[in-house]
Amino acid sequence: MSLLSFEQNRAVDFIGLGRLCIDLNANEIHRPMEETRTFTKYVGGSPANITIAMARLGMKTGFIGRVSDDQHGRFITGYLEKEGIDTSSVITDRSGSVTGLAFTEILSPTECSILMYRDNVADFKLETGDVSEEYIKSAKSILISGTALAKSPSREAAFKAIELARKHNVVVFFDIDYRPYSWVSREEAGVYCGLVAEKSDVILGGREEFDLMEAVHGPLQHNDQATAQKWFDHHAKIVLVKHGGDGSVAFTKDGRVLTGRTFPANVVKTFGAGDSFAGAFIYGIMHGWEVDRSQEFGSASASIVVSSHSCSDAMPTVEQIQAIIDANPAK
Amino acid sequence: MSLLSFEQNRAVDFIGLGRLCIDLNANEIHRPMEETRTFTKYVGGSPANITIAMARLGMKTGFIGRVSDDQHGRFITGYLEKEGIDTSSVITDRSGSVTGLAFTEILSPTECSILMYRDNVADFKLETGDVSEEYIKSAKSILISGTALAKSPSREAAFKAIELARKHNVVVFFDIDYRPYSWVSREEAGVYCGLVAEKSDVILGGREEFDLMEAVHGPLQHNDQATAQKWFDHHAKIVLVKHGGDGSVAFTKDGRVLTGRTFPANVVKTFGAGDSFAGAFIYGIMHGWEVDRSQEFGSASASIVVSSHSCSDAMPTVEQIQAIIDANPAK
Amino acid sequence: MSLLSFEQNRAVDFIGLGRLCIDLNANEIHRPMEETRTFTKYVGGSPANITIAMARLGMKTGFIGRVSDDQHGRFITGYLEKEGIDTSSVITDRSGSVTGLAFTEILSPTECSILMYRDNVADFKLETGDVSEEYIKSAKSILISGTALAKSPSREAAFKAIELARKHNVVVFFDIDYRPYSWVSREEAGVYCGLVAEKSDVILGGREEFDLMEAVHGPLQHNDQATAQKWFDHHAKIVLVKHGGDGSVAFTKDGRVLTGRTFPANVVKTFGAGDSFAGAFIYGIMHGWEVDRSQEFGSASASIVVSSHSCSDAMPTVEQIQAIIDANPAK
Amino acid sequence: MSLLSFEQNRAVDFIGLGRLCIDLNANEIHRPMEETRTFTKYVGGSPANITIAMARLGMKTGFIGRVSDDQHGRFITGYLEKEGIDTSSVITDRSGSVTGLAFTEILSPTECSILMYRDNVADFKLETGDVSEEYIKSAKSILISGTALAKSPSREAAFKAIELARKHNVVVFFDIDYRPYSWVSREEAGVYCGLVAEKSDVILGGREEFDLMEAVHGPLQHNDQATAQKWFDHHAKIVLVKHGGDGSVAFTKDGRVLTGRTFPANVVKTFGAGDSFAGAFIYGIMHGWEVDRSQEFGSASASIVVSSHSCSDAMPTVEQIQAIIDANPAK
Repeated sequence: MSLLSFEQNRAVDFIGLGRLCIDLNANEIHRPMEETRTFTKYVGGSPANITIAMARLGMKTGFIGRVSDDQHGRFITGYLEKEGIDTSSVITDRSGSVTGLAFTEILSPTECSILMYRDNVADFKLETGDVSEEYIKSAKSILISGTALAKSPSREAAFKAIELARKHNVVVFFDIDYRPYSWVSREEAGVYCGLVAEKSDVILGGREEFDLMEAVHGPLQHNDQATAQKWFDHHAKIVLVKHGGDGSVAFTKDGRVLTGRTFPANVVKTFGAGDSFAGAFIYGIMHGWEVDRSQEFGSASASIVVSSHSCSDAMPTVEQIQAIIDANPAK
Repeated sequence: MSLLSFEQNRAVDFIGLGRLCIDLNANEIHRPMEETRTFTKYVGGSPANITIAMARLGMKTGFIGRVSDDQHGRFITGYLEKEGIDTSSVITDRSGSVTGLAFTEILSPTECSILMYRDNVADFKLETGDVSEEYIKSAKSILISGTALAKSPSREAAFKAIELARKHNVVVFFDIDYRPYSWVSREEAGVYCGLVAEKSDVILGGREEFDLMEAVHGPLQHNDQATAQKWFDHHAKIVLVKHGGDGSVAFTKDGRVLTGRTFPANVVKTFGAGDSFAGAFIYGIMHGWEVDRSQEFGSASASIVVSSHSCSDAMPTVEQIQAIIDANPAK
Repeated sequence: MSLLSFEQNRAVDFIGLGRLCIDLNANEIHRPMEETRTFTKYVGGSPANITIAMARLGMKTGFIGRVSDDQHGRFITGYLEKEGIDTSSVITDRSGSVTGLAFTEILSPTECSILMYRDNVADFKLETGDVSEEYIKSAKSILISGTALAKSPSREAAFKAIELARKHNVVVFFDIDYRPYSWVSREEAGVYCGLVAEKSDVILGGREEFDLMEAVHGPLQHNDQATAQKWFDHHAKIVLVKHGGDGSVAFTKDGRVLTGRTFPANVVKTFGAGDSFAGAFIYGIMHGWEVDRSQEFGSASASIVVSSHSCSDAMPTVEQIQAIIDANPAK
Repeated sequence: MSLLSFEQNRAVDFIGLGRLCIDLNANEIHRPMEETRTFTKYVGGSPANITIAMARLGMKTGFIGRVSDDQHGRFITGYLEKEGIDTSSVITDRSGSVTGLAFTEILSPTECSILMYRDNVADFKLETGDVSEEYIKSAKSILISGTALAKSPSREAAFKAIELARKHNVVVFFDIDYRPYSWVSREEAGVYCGLVAEKSDVILGGREEFDLMEAVHGPLQHNDQATAQKWFDHHAKIVLVKHGGDGSVAFTKDGRVLTGRTFPANVVKTFGAGDSFAGAFIYGIMHGWEVDRSQEFGSASASIVVSSHSCSDAMPTVEQIQAIIDANPAK
């Protein structure tokens, strides 16, 4: 019996909700950004990347978000459409907002940093009125990015989407995606991420991200199993704790603990590892695969993306991921 | 068997959380405020009034809130202490905030209005760090005022208090207390009040206030019974829908529907009716009285307060309320 | 020959510009405000007080300002009209602003303090569009209160009024009226007050207020004569440095230095001394009196106001001031 | 006799004050920005460009401004230093600000647009404390960019710099540089630009920019000569009205009206024309050249910059400008 059941008669497999941004990746790498002169533009933002990953894997996808009323906003919408992602709920914000930017610096494969532009960004202007009950209930699943909770009115829009998802049996994936610069305080992040985690079916995050949420309720335990149990007491069926390069541990409500294997990669940069993992992992879960097979699929996808210059643009197909798995048989 | 069980070995009966304000009541009544020249100062704010009501009824009470670092803030703290309310969690805010003000105009017993000062107020500066797990778990019950959810960081502090209350089996009373001027939008109010209602044991509000919360989940039903059932599906045991002068209807999780009777009053103004009702009603519930007897006690208390010039200062004792009940036997 | 010449064919003698507020004066005095229970409401704000003073002295007066769209705003406008002050340029602000408040505490005749409410106040919402060239040029003189410069768009409206006043030979009185709580920094106050002082004919302020402006240009000299000379190099004809209870020193562009005498008073509180002085002093100047006679008239007026409970309401008539002067012959 | 006299015993010829930004110029031109994928990074911002122009022309230059505490800020400071510009008054802002960005789109030589990032930018964080009297008085001249007046505290810092410049006989060049997106309203821009224009020796702007300032004082006259006279009544000696591709008209306080000739160019984009003109024009003025020769020098410089992909990076040397003039003899 599967942990999660997806309503089969739904037009859309997967909806992403939240941030639609632009990455400006330094073309001249292995040097400080002060010394780079040219940048290449890509669609970015964690939920955008994951949705693009899902589209590349052949899923029917859509997005709920806001983009700026300018060339950057139009670039994003155009890119999503080109990937076959439904943009009927991607709203052009006319308040004078801008598109969030991430300038990426790649000093070495393990030393990467990001210079963010997050003031007055369109994605945080998402309103409850942008979230359509009809649209939500046309989908099998929805992904909420924790960053969508960092500011109003995006936060309320995300809560509305979750309420409607629960009402209509849409499976809720929650990627905690904690970005300190978007929040007033760790406490604020912990409160709202915790409220969403309670209503989610699958929660993905790092150890530190789970700690954020637990800190609201008392002293920290730093125990993955206890963390998972806490959310199983609400609605969660799968809690996946990511441990960076060391892979991930998935806990299931029926008591299993599963460790994903990782794949060798010729690492260019670490950006995008989490999003490519999440996309392929969710793909597996939605196909009824075992959790550990889904983790393996996610890790193989991540190994492809970290070997490439971009995140969104490098999201692989099923065949590309399978080729990696086939080339690296489990011992 | 009682619907609610209160932990008996707790030092404090009841903690109020939220707004501590000042009412400036026009002394010359039955005229527009433009024509009044003098005002009398009282402690105000719905959770402050309810806590004062509880203290007058002999309960051991405390408060979690912030006051301004000035004469008004000191007046409030001093008044609470004089009433025997524990102020160890009433923090002096040093950010330059002011005390919220309500100038009240009494044109006639049924035409009252309030001119509010709610910019940069101390009560909204309450922080998660102000909410002590030790303090919460020393209490049998806590009252959350919905207005505390209207701004950050007060909102996060309220959520933290609720999480800790649930963790330690502290009964959560939620007074929706919707004040449109404190919120950005009705949608925002509906989202956060709904999240708190899900975690509350007893919810008090008017029809319109329940509608606010339901609007997040789809078309309104305007049905008190359906409303109550919605929250029984979460943690609520009692849902009380207030219908102004027509009294209140209480729904209980075990299926009862109870209507309180009302008492004649020589009405000076309508302000304070809800808070005095809430205080006496909660008193009854905490003493294990039947719900309808608690409603009657609340209504009798309200009849005293609406006959007086102030709200907080007019909160009656048990004996005063009982005298009204005795003088007006049920038919 | 007079230092200043006033255009005689103007319908209005004097226009005040800036703050229209409410004073809430503690009725129970000689105690901390925490212990007072009732307050009396008066129109307040320095330029309002000075304009009321001028009206009581029989001058044809008007006002340029914004009031809140509520009972307090209507009270102010009604009071000005009752005093015969033209309110055709007193605009009702519909942005949701409130009236500024000053709660006054009188601990003793020499220990007075004010608790201010200055967030989101209507007076700072004055816009350049509210300043009519026709209105300005209908007047002989205009008074700019420095506080009007503390926030936008009021600041720009004040600058526009001054430009139009200079264009049409309307004498500009500048009362520095520095209120630290309204400004971001002393430096900001110094910059804008200095720009107005350069364009003013008569400047009134305390030693500290002149220092604020001078600090922009280099190390302070703390020298009244040098201060006066600085502004004579621009447009000033009279610079009056107030020294609190010690009276004032007036410097004139033609080289005179004049000291006003002071009058005994049965001091209730010190509030309002400066505004009553300014009103009567300007009255004298506008009647072509010698500067020191104008100072004497101002001091006599101040002695009346400090002996009373209110500021605006206590502004005396010419006869009342003269009676004080007659009763206290110069030695 | 020269209109302007420059103090000769000064260590620095020219200080720029205001905006230090980054231009991200689309590499793929003649298409909408939605279709470009790569951008090249340059230092930008009008006063930065003019100061770089002056440095390329061999002048001893410095800058007063703030940069962000990140890779972009360090890139800017490093670039200025490489150009020989003194950065001792270029402060690293540690408030969490970002560097202003301008993404440029070149649809055709005459259709260019800019997508700006101007929220929370470092340049507007310049404070009065950053402006050193010692530094100002070490210079012969200072350039104020009108954009520095658009926000506090940069506005107050600019006013302080001007006061100190006047005190120490530092010639003030004022480039109105009106950018509507940086201002709350046209009225606000007009007020502050006008206050600076009054204190400036040389004013450069377009017809519309002069209108902005005049609108504060009454109905517009749209008359260049009247405009110039208005500012001659204050401190101006030269008023230069730019008419885009039609060249410029310079008015001098001693009554001359001078028209600059223009030079043919193989126009890539129009950005940078004004800044390169201003730099070379000021160079001429500071060398005591006739005004029209300075205009010619400015136009020749502009013809070089508009033929290039960048602004700052394309600023020419004296020899390069002279070569253009020599190749295009006046008829």
